[in-house]
Amino acid sequence: MTDAATMLDIAVDEARQGLAEGGIPIGAALFGPDGTVLGRGHNRRVQDDDPSTHAETAAFRNAGRRRHYRDTTMVTTLSPCWYCSGLVRQFAIGHVIIGESTTFHGGHDWLTAHGVQITILDDQRCIALMRDFIATRPDLWFEDIGE
Amino acid sequence: MTDAATMLDIAVDEARQGLAEGGIPIGAALFGPDGTVLGRGHNRRVQDDDPSTHAETAAFRNAGRRRHYRDTTMVTTLSPCWYCSGLVRQFAIGHVIIGESTTFHGGHDWLTAHGVQITILDDQRCIALMRDFIATRPDLWFEDIGE
Repeated sequence: MTDAATMLDIAVDEARQGLAEGGIPIGAALFGPDGTVLGRGHNRRVQDDDPSTHAETAAFRNAGRRRHYRDTTMVTTLSPCWYCSGLVRQFAIGHVIIGESTTFHGGHDWLTAHGVQITILDDQRCIALMRDFIATRPDLWFEDIGE
Repeated sequence: MTDAATMLDIAVDEARQGLAEGGIPIGAALFGPDGTVLGRGHNRRVQDDDPSTHAETAAFRNAGRRRHYRDTTMVTTLSPCWYCSGLVRQFAIGHVIIGESTTFHGGHDWLTAHGVQITILDDQRCIALMRDFIATRPDLWFEDIGE
């Protein structure tokens, strides 16, 4: 069993890697029931000119094909947007660990209502990453959430 | 202005191309306000070993980065699952044209409740494509919707 803070560290590493590449600093990882990393990734809008690769989608894609997800945990640095919340609901990912929901409040309440376990960590590294990024590149951030 | 049936033909072409490649026969296209195809694509789970590329995500990705989507129309051969419905809601795509919702009923009622215009065509080609596919490859179909 891996604790939530240790799992979040991997998502934070991904977010920082994305920032270092000139991208949007949001990272995620999908874990199996034994704490194994199945897939990890970060937002790739800027890097690949790809609006569809949010961090959660990147981690989900990199985990490859699976028969089911109910015993998996998605860890993400930021509250998942509707697109990523829809991913969690459709594939019945059992648990979502969220670094912070202060700078953006996505669909995690909806996920709770549909039986997904939600853990919010209020992590100061995650808040600082997004706060600084939104202040520096509001254009990229609002493009990424379609606002 | 392009009519809904003509727009759906492009999504059906994509679905048939996916089937010919050995994949899941669901296709989609994103159109601009003048009827221009911005992006088109089909489900690529089998072809790319990629669980994240549903048809709507493929069309959205292939359209590239845009500042907003409110005047765009997503055409898809099948009612969008929660993942693809979340995509439509997050990026505020204004209109979704759906080939059929008989073989699968996804999140389109939720989209209607959130102000998205929904048009369902009850297209017999789309129904036949999915009915035959589900009968032939139920394993792939249930994997694709996480059931």
